[in-house]
Order: sequence, then C-alpha cells, then structure tokens
Amino acid sequence: MMIVMSTQATPEQIEHVLARIREEGFTTHRSDGADHTVIGCVGHLNPDTVDPRQFELLAGVAQVVRISVPYKLASRTFKRDDTVVDVAGVKVGGREVVLMAGPCAIESRAQVEAIAPLVARAGARVMRGGAFKPRTSPYAFQGMGEEGLRLIRDAARAHHLAVVSEVMDRTQIEMVASYVDLLQVGARNMQNFDLLKDLGRQRKPVLLKRGLAATLEELLLAAEYILAGGNTQVILCERGIRTFERATRNTLDISAIPVLKTMSHLPVVVDPSHAIGIRDKVPPAARAAVAAGADGLLVEVHDQPEKALCDGAQSLLPAQLDGLSREIKVIAEVIGRSYGLPV
Amino acid sequence: MMIVMSTQATPEQIEHVLARIREEGFTTHRSDGADHTVIGCVGHLNPDTVDPRQFELLAGVAQVVRISVPYKLASRTFKRDDTVVDVAGVKVGGREVVLMAGPCAIESRAQVEAIAPLVARAGARVMRGGAFKPRTSPYAFQGMGEEGLRLIRDAARAHHLAVVSEVMDRTQIEMVASYVDLLQVGARNMQNFDLLKDLGRQRKPVLLKRGLAATLEELLLAAEYILAGGNTQVILCERGIRTFERATRNTLDISAIPVLKTMSHLPVVVDPSHAIGIRDKVPPAARAAVAAGADGLLVEVHDQPEKALCDGAQSLLPAQLDGLSREIKVIAEVIGRSYGLPV
Amino acid sequence: MMIVMSTQATPEQIEHVLARIREEGFTTHRSDGADHTVIGCVGHLNPDTVDPRQFELLAGVAQVVRISVPYKLASRTFKRDDTVVDVAGVKVGGREVVLMAGPCAIESRAQVEAIAPLVARAGARVMRGGAFKPRTSPYAFQGMGEEGLRLIRDAARAHHLAVVSEVMDRTQIEMVASYVDLLQVGARNMQNFDLLKDLGRQRKPVLLKRGLAATLEELLLAAEYILAGGNTQVILCERGIRTFERATRNTLDISAIPVLKTMSHLPVVVDPSHAIGIRDKVPPAARAAVAAGADGLLVEVHDQPEKALCDGAQSLLPAQLDGLSREIKVIAEVIGRSYGLPV
Amino acid sequence: MMIVMSTQATPEQIEHVLARIREEGFTTHRSDGADHTVIGCVGHLNPDTVDPRQFELLAGVAQVVRISVPYKLASRTFKRDDTVVDVAGVKVGGREVVLMAGPCAIESRAQVEAIAPLVARAGARVMRGGAFKPRTSPYAFQGMGEEGLRLIRDAARAHHLAVVSEVMDRTQIEMVASYVDLLQVGARNMQNFDLLKDLGRQRKPVLLKRGLAATLEELLLAAEYILAGGNTQVILCERGIRTFERATRNTLDISAIPVLKTMSHLPVVVDPSHAIGIRDKVPPAARAAVAAGADGLLVEVHDQPEKALCDGAQSLLPAQLDGLSREIKVIAEVIGRSYGLPV
Repeated sequence: MMIVMSTQATPEQIEHVLARIREEGFTTHRSDGADHTVIGCVGHLNPDTVDPRQFELLAGVAQVVRISVPYKLASRTFKRDDTVVDVAGVKVGGREVVLMAGPCAIESRAQVEAIAPLVARAGARVMRGGAFKPRTSPYAFQGMGEEGLRLIRDAARAHHLAVVSEVMDRTQIEMVASYVDLLQVGARNMQNFDLLKDLGRQRKPVLLKRGLAATLEELLLAAEYILAGGNTQVILCERGIRTFERATRNTLDISAIPVLKTMSHLPVVVDPSHAIGIRDKVPPAARAAVAAGADGLLVEVHDQPEKALCDGAQSLLPAQLDGLSREIKVIAEVIGRSYGLPV
Repeated sequence: MMIVMSTQATPEQIEHVLARIREEGFTTHRSDGADHTVIGCVGHLNPDTVDPRQFELLAGVAQVVRISVPYKLASRTFKRDDTVVDVAGVKVGGREVVLMAGPCAIESRAQVEAIAPLVARAGARVMRGGAFKPRTSPYAFQGMGEEGLRLIRDAARAHHLAVVSEVMDRTQIEMVASYVDLLQVGARNMQNFDLLKDLGRQRKPVLLKRGLAATLEELLLAAEYILAGGNTQVILCERGIRTFERATRNTLDISAIPVLKTMSHLPVVVDPSHAIGIRDKVPPAARAAVAAGADGLLVEVHDQPEKALCDGAQSLLPAQLDGLSREIKVIAEVIGRSYGLPV
Repeated sequence: MMIVMSTQATPEQIEHVLARIREEGFTTHRSDGADHTVIGCVGHLNPDTVDPRQFELLAGVAQVVRISVPYKLASRTFKRDDTVVDVAGVKVGGREVVLMAGPCAIESRAQVEAIAPLVARAGARVMRGGAFKPRTSPYAFQGMGEEGLRLIRDAARAHHLAVVSEVMDRTQIEMVASYVDLLQVGARNMQNFDLLKDLGRQRKPVLLKRGLAATLEELLLAAEYILAGGNTQVILCERGIRTFERATRNTLDISAIPVLKTMSHLPVVVDPSHAIGIRDKVPPAARAAVAAGADGLLVEVHDQPEKALCDGAQSLLPAQLDGLSREIKVIAEVIGRSYGLPV
Repeated sequence: MMIVMSTQATPEQIEHVLARIREEGFTTHRSDGADHTVIGCVGHLNPDTVDPRQFELLAGVAQVVRISVPYKLASRTFKRDDTVVDVAGVKVGGREVVLMAGPCAIESRAQVEAIAPLVARAGARVMRGGAFKPRTSPYAFQGMGEEGLRLIRDAARAHHLAVVSEVMDRTQIEMVASYVDLLQVGARNMQNFDLLKDLGRQRKPVLLKRGLAATLEELLLAAEYILAGGNTQVILCERGIRTFERATRNTLDISAIPVLKTMSHLPVVVDPSHAIGIRDKVPPAARAAVAAGADGLLVEVHDQPEKALCDGAQSLLPAQLDGLSREIKVIAEVIGRSYGLPV
C-alpha cells in the first residue's frame, strides 16, 4: 500500500498519517517528491485485513494505492505452473480441452439415459446435469434432488463419463459429493462464504462459477476461500456477466480467459449456454472460447429441448453438439491444444 | 403470455405452435391481424413454471411476450394496501420514517455501549451491527459471532432499541433469531434460495437487501420465496447496484424507491452507507432517499471510525448522524411523513 | 505517476524502466522497499500526454499508478471557490436552487405560449425546449429547427425567463447562440470533441450533460475541453447512466452530485425526466436531487403530455410541477439553500 | 404494437384507449381474453414516429408491447442476403475474412512506411491509422490531420492496401473521403446524428463502431441513419462495451457477432485492440472473433509500440501479427471461410 499525500499537506498531517500507519502494524517508507510526499507501507503480517479506504479520510491524504493483490494462493505469483485438476481421472487444465455436457436439469431416468451416449459420442469427458436448481422464481421447477443424482451417476458410468453437479447449500455437500466427481458452485452462490469454506475442508474438486456482477478479482478471492481451507482443486468458470445489453441473456466476457490465465494458475472453463441463452448462438461462442484459450467447455444439450423442464431454449440439439466437437478439435490444435474426439 | 408469429409464418407453423401451447397446459386465443397472427395463452394453472423462451425457438415465431409479472404475493396487484412490518413494536412502512443505525461490525462490549446511546439520541428505533460478516477476502475480519449478538442485544435493550443483524446461512437462523428482532439477508445472499425458503418458514421479520446486480423484479422474486413460505413480514432494502462508475463504491438507485412502491406493497428502506462507501457523501444520499419516499434508512455510525475493524471509511461520525436526523425530520414532513426525533 | 516494480524484477529491468521514463521527459525518484522498488515519475511538462499503460508492458513492471487527476481547470484543486454561472442574469451555482422547465421538444407557437406561464408560475428561471432533437431512430420527429428557437425565445421573453436549448453540431453554434442564453450539449454529444472545442471558443454558457456511459472523470475531461478554450461558464448535468436495470429508462446517479462537488468547482444540475422516463417517478427523483445538493433541476413539463411529439410519457403535468416547486422550496431551505417561488 | 389492458380496466377506459390509438393513426384490433383485453395496433403509416411509452400512462393500461423492430433497411427481414461491402475492391462480408491493421495514430512518414509492409505481409487488405483522434483529454495528442492522411495514403498504395481512417465531424467528410477508401465513425460518434446523415448522402463505404453503451438495436438504428440517406455500404464494428469489469479496458461482446448476423444483413467486424487494451490479450480475442463468425478484424500494430504516441500498450508487435494471421487462416477454414495469407 502506498499513500500519496496532497500537495497542500502540512508537515503535521504527514506525521499524523505516519503514526496511524505504524499503529496499524506497518513499517513506513517515506519519500518526498517535488509535489507530493509518498508513504510506502510495508511489512504488515496480514495486509489483507486492512481496509485501505480508512486512510483516505485522514487529513492531507490525496490517494491510497493498493499494491499487492488481495488473493495469494490463487495467484500466478504464488504458483508459477498451471494447476491441473483431476476429475476422476479427467485432467482439466492440461493440454487437452475438456468438454462437459448434459441437460440443464435431470428430469428422469429415460432422459439421462438418452443424453449420456450423445455426450460420450461427442468426445465429452464429463456429464453435467442439475439435481438442485437455483431458480429465480419460487414457482419454477426446483430439481429432482438426490434421486436425480443417482440417475445421472448411473447413466454417466455406463458411458465412462465423470459427473459434475451443483451443490446449493453447505448442508448438501457430503451427500452430493457421494454421487459426483466435481462439485459445482453456481453464479448466485459465488459469494456464499459459508459454502465456500466448507468446500475448502473436503477434497472433491470444485467448479466455481463467476457471479453475474463479480469482477475477476472477486472470483479469485472466492477461489481463495476454498484454497485457504486446503482444497487445491478449483476450476474457474466464466459464464457471462450482466450488462446493459438485452439481446443475449448475459454478456460472455471472452477476454476473461486470457486475463485469468495471467492472474492465476487455476484452470478456466467457459459455459456459453448460460452466457448467451439462445441455442443458435451457443456454438459460435463455444468456438470462440476455445480459440481464446479456455481449458474446457460446459455446454447444455438435450435430446428433446422443446420439452425440457429447464432452459430448453439454450440447449444444443445432439447434431449441433457433434458439429461443435469437430470444430473445436481443429481450433484446439491451432493453439497447441488437443481435443479427444473418439475415432 | 402472447406469441407473435412472424409475417412469413405458414398456416402449418401456426397450427404447430397452437398445438404445443395447448400441450403445455394453456388455453389459446388466436387473432389474425393484417401483418401478424397473435396467439394469446391463458388459463395455465401455474404459468410461472413455463419458460417463455422455449416458444421463441418454434418455427414461425417472431416474439414471445410475457404479460403477467412473475411474482404474486409481493405484488401491489395482490395486495393494494401498504404492508407495515412490525419490528418488536417499531412500525416500518407506516407514516413514520424509521432510522436504523449502528456500527458495521460488532467489535466489543465497550464499542456497542458507546454507540447505542448515540443511536438513540438521533431518534433511531433500531440498532444495526454485524456479528457474521460476509467479507470478499477470506483474510478479513469475519465477525464476533454469537458473542457479538449477545453484546448488541444488551446494549440496545438499555436504550429501548430493536436490533437488526445479518444471518448468512440457514444453519444460523434459529440462533440469530433468538437475539435479534429483524433478520437481515445481505446483498450477496439475495439469491441464496435455501436461506430464503427457511426464512419463510419462521416468523421473525426479514430485511432483504438487493443484490449488486439484481433487477427490481429479481428482488421481488427473492421476497416471493420468503412470502411463499408464509412469512409476510419482509422489508426491501436498496443498497446500491454495480455499474461502470468507480467514484463511489456502488451506484445508489434512488428511483428504485418509487418504482418498488408501485410494483409492491412491501416497505422499502435504503442503506446509503454501502451504496456510497464514502462518509461525507452518506448524508446527502440519506436525505435524498427520504425525499424520494423511503420508509427508513440503514446507516453506519461509529464513535471512532478511524479504528473500526470494518468499513470505518463509510461510517458517520456521531455529530453527522445528529445533523442528518434533524434534516430528515424536515424532509419527511414535506412529503407527509414524520420522524420521531426525541425532544 | 508511480511505477511499482515486480518482486522478481532484476536490476537490469529496473534500470531499463528508469531510462525509458527519463527518455519520456520525467524526472525519476527511486525508492527500494523490502518487497518492491517503486519509481516516482515527476516533473513532466505535460503529463497528460503520456499514456501510463505503455509502461505496464515493460519487463519487470507490476503496476503503474496515476497520481494526478487528468483534468486541471475543472478541478477543485485548481479553483477552490464554487463557480457561479450567469445565465442572462440567473445565477446557477449560488445559494438559490434554479429550476429549468419546459417541453421536450418545441412543437408550435401555441404550445410554448401555453407552457411558458406554467413554468414561470412554478418559480422556474429558465425555459427549456429542444429545436434540434437527437433521436435514436431516423424516423422519429427531429425538431422544428431555427423556427422553434424563435418561438421559444418569444414565449420565454414574455414571462422573463431565460432559455436553454440543445446544439447538436458545431455548424449550428452561432445560430443557436443568437436565440438562447444557455447552450446545451446532449448526452450523446458529451464526447463530440470538435463541438466542445468550438463551444470553448465562444462566450455563451454551456450546460454539459453526462454521457450514458461516461464516468464522472470523463465528464470533467469533457468540461475541460470547453474550459481550455477560454469559456469558464460550464454547468454539469447528471441525467442518468445506463445500467442493467430495466424498470427505469436510465439509473439516476444521485451520489454524482456530492462527488462532483468535491472533484470540481462547477455547478451541478440534475435532469430527472430523462433519468427516470416515467412521469410519476420524476417528482420523487427531483426532490432527491435537491436534497442531495443539486444546484438546479432540468424538468420536462407539458400542458398536454398525451399529445406531445416527444417524451410525453415523462413530462410532468402542470399541477405536478406546482406541487414539486413547493416541496423543493422546503427541502432547499433544510440544507441552507433557497428557492425563488413567486408569492 | 399491442396494448395489454389491466385486469381491473373498466369498459370506459378500454374505449378511451381505443379512441386515442385511432386518433394516433392506427387501426385497432381488439380481443377480450379471460383476464385481459388486448388491443392490437396496426396499419400506421410510420409507426416508428410513435413513442409507445405515451400509451402506458393511459388509465387502465397494464403494458405496451412493441412488436416490430424500429429499424427497417438494416434488418435481415428487409434484405435476406448478406450485404458485401466493396472497399476499393476488397470485399467485406463475403467468404474471405478481411484483416485491417495499422497504427492507432499516424505519426510520421517513417512510421507508416515501416508499418505498411508488415501489414501487407500478414495478409491484411486494408491499412488503418488515425489522423483525427478523439481523445478523452484535451491535452493528449490529437492527430496529424490532413497531412497524416496523405502519408498513410502513400504508404498503403505502395503495398496495394486500401485505407480506413476516422472522420470526426461532418465538416471533414469530403476532405477525408478524398484520401481514404473506408470512412470510420468512432464509438463516441455513433449517435452523432448530423454526421451519420451526411455520411448517408455520400457514397464512400462507412465502418460504424458500436458506442460504449450502445445496445445492438441502437447500433442498427445508427446504421439506419446512413442507409436511409441512400448509402448502402455500411460495415458494423464491435469494439467492446463498458461494464463493471476493470481488468480490461472494455468488455468484448463476442456474441454480438452471431446476434447481429441474425438481426441484420450488414457485415460485422471486430476491433479487439480497443476492446481489450492489453497487447498480450489481443491475439486470443482476435482468434475468438474469427471463430465466432466475424467478417473481419481491425487490429492495431506498431513497429515500435514502446514509442507510440497513442495506445502503444495495445498495439501488436509485428511478430504477433504474423502469428495471428496464421492462426486465423486455420480457424476461418474450420467454419467455411477463407483468409488470404500470402504464400
């Protein structure tokens, strides 16, 4: 942290600020320029417990500048090498681009048994499907619950697919973890800190979705909650942010991919289905994500999207998923990645 | 819901759409205009379980228009008269503008005992203070927990103040409710649906803060989760939304007050401290909120803001709170309200 | 500007950065902390011509921090005292809160003659009305042009009102200035730099509206274009920013008022009509603006809003304007201002 | 337009609304449902001159629904086939993906002569470079003016490149058009309607950049101003929108590409340099744009970006441009396009 004093600051004001900073536990480092005195604040044992805004109100202070990033374990500085997350043997964050696909919500045994082979055929390694659905309206379908998890587990196993599904509340973690290989935290729960803390204490990998209005820094701080608990297996997921544009459900922040790769060592996947919300626009966005360097995709697909109980309008048709998988294989190779399309 | 067919729609496409809508449980009502055929969809038993986007993808459909609002119990149509919430005898939503004030976080017995009389002196009816703090960083002060609730309870009682404090997780509800009169749901938890459902099943009133990126419709749908559980005592709280502007912490959406008053019968209070994040700008925003018709204010105050463990930079000084209370009394009276400043 | 070197920066990298900064015309000031070397960059003759981002790409640089604000003449540092703008004898930015009211668009002689006495009766000092309308659609009414300016000039004169109207293009300035007392720059033109430069070269005062996506800093930089040309008579106008919320036309940024007052010495007025877009919500927002410290209001009023050619839906009825004027008089007095309601 | 009456609307209110709509020039079409009466409004000669919001205020009206899109000539309905714009023989919007590259600002003869061969070598067909720069600060470099245009014209001709450059004001159109093949309208000028109208009256093709806060509908309405003047040669350009995220200069709206392709027949190109603002993130975003279906790219490149007078931080190095061109060739072919990389 650096404190820039105003050009009008008096010597007394500068002394008072120095004293307050030392009181707070920092070592100070003063340098007097022609216009400004700048005070460097270093050596605090736990600088992130300090709210820099409190110094902005001291008399004579012009500006307070935070230097260090507030996340540690999630940062590229802390760990230079890419983290590769192991989802029941599927490596996310390595050379291979990983497709995770399936329905928005698990609806029935017949449904997941129909969809699982389509997903496997397209080269996906992980099957997705929600059993607990965070719905904006209390009157919308809220998911099948534990029974749904049992169904997707069985359907996925028959096609050698790992399973990812959402956990909405800390009280569900143990139960959900007994069925799935990757625990998803939804966008609305990105700052449900009690949930994050408990996910840090268990050992299943976590797929953490970016909140609709979360900055990339906040996404990494949410990941930090999980990492700080001792669970190093976190996958970040860009799924669109909320902007003024209404033509799409959300705005996919495509540059989040290379930016997160610089800020952090964690793998980054993209969910184009929720970002866009319109079936025909999902494949272009999915291709774009791979071209921009995503480690994987999370895509909704349905064998009968017209009848889906949830988000049918954004679910790909099986043929669209096949076409997409062929395209991303080529794009992945352009940038030195691979995609495991079955021969 | 109305479905507008494209000008190029064929008779077969129109028939197919009519069939699909009936299959979904609606009665249809067709009208053929010069350019467009429009299909009215009525009579569904539970229209909110239907995702209108699914019809947008049918061949020949130009546009799907939702007519009814998706919330019911929270709507002004459902209940014409203003709801007045009773917080341990303090009426929120009636003629009187209600001030709720206190520190961001409960820090010690000495702190709450110093602040409670300042709060009472300014005419506040409710004391605020957090015992469980949702912090962006895992390394920031996370609150005193249950011990803090005991301290604020005691300090408030001595000055005849009710207490509001945040509940972060469904597992805490019962315990927090045993100390406080009004359960606060924070902005980050506005769509923590499991928490909302459980708050609907108990009977303490709830103060529901708007999420940083939540539309007013989504705020009312979150309230609907609580109301649908049988708890009719919900207070809505505008606390700033996230925009591109960086000069303030968030952007206070002042027109949310009159707009919510038209959409809903629930009381609306404003938290200018979190919306703005800069002490000197809080009183102008607080006055503005009362002038715009807010039923109350939630304001941070601290006897020693320089040393506050949390959000000291946005906490009012005691003298600022006194000045503010005199101003809002006059403004409240301009618009036919009152403010209970002690003589 | 300060440059924070990475913790891994080598001595060679630091030397290279120092050299580059000096080459750019700065004097450097190096301080080596425990973790970071920080380089202060001072003494540049024209620091605002330097793009700080260029230094971010030099090897070993962690962060570049801009210290000075990029606007000068518009800043409170440059001029401590409030600027009072003289609009044909009406003082904007002084003790009195100034109301500017009138129709969105000038439509006919009968219209402006009907509205002018309503405006005067409510205590307004300035009549507003557009002759050149920037319309999103090329098919919408584009305004009456010069003939409209003649009509509003006549109607306003009969009631001792000054006139404000929009100038859309630099080629119109001289002509518009021959009819009006205050030249309005619309939100869409806030960064039409050729227009701003020409407005700086003439001497009629300018009302500069904030762009829909402009930060407050950018608004002040736009004002700087006018001030730098030698015209010191600039009034800033907050008129709502674009956010994700759809319940109102735009989101009125109420805290922009006190924030601009700190950043700058220029007067700040608010246009609640364009910010909100719904007639019944305009008076609460207008009261809020005065309560937050606005120097004036720009409000749309129409004697027959149902038949208005432009923005009838947000124009106040005459009786609403009367009620509003009585309310703002009381609110103005609460905060030490006045409002000149005729007895 | 359809008007949905409230469930409580009286027969008198319905009659009044019907009368007002007819008065406005519409033919009405009434249908009485179980809950709502819906009034279809058709047959208006010029429906876009009508502000639907005015009907929302009539007693008994619940909702007004616009059916037709407000742009005509720009819409895919008006013209089914893709428009191919001819830029001095370079076809934009056809099978080939077109690269336009060059410096942010023209700085000297030496500079453009150094950059032009790099641009041609990478397979670009059009050279970009600004002579008139819209700068946020009045103190920043404002461009070389007409002399700059002469320099880029000469440098481009020597390498068989077409030229695109920005026109900031209507008074410059004729002069700029005498040097360049494609007239660029900058993001800040997207709603400078006088400029758009004049560009519609001349015959050079226009590259229209999306405003920072413009919806896609508003972009098409801005294009409509040009098309309505008789100039059919318009290229749309996505260049990032303003959101709350601060890690990048703007947020590239990647899904704007497929969405605009559905709404309109006009070609769509992407400017990743301005969208992202960080050199190393530009190639991933550029690849993503081609993967999402863009008809072309507008990219900044500089032979000495460390010394660029403008936006050096986001300009590619020559070697990066070469690498990018090889990647986009492969990606273009994946989706049935081509890229003309020289052998």
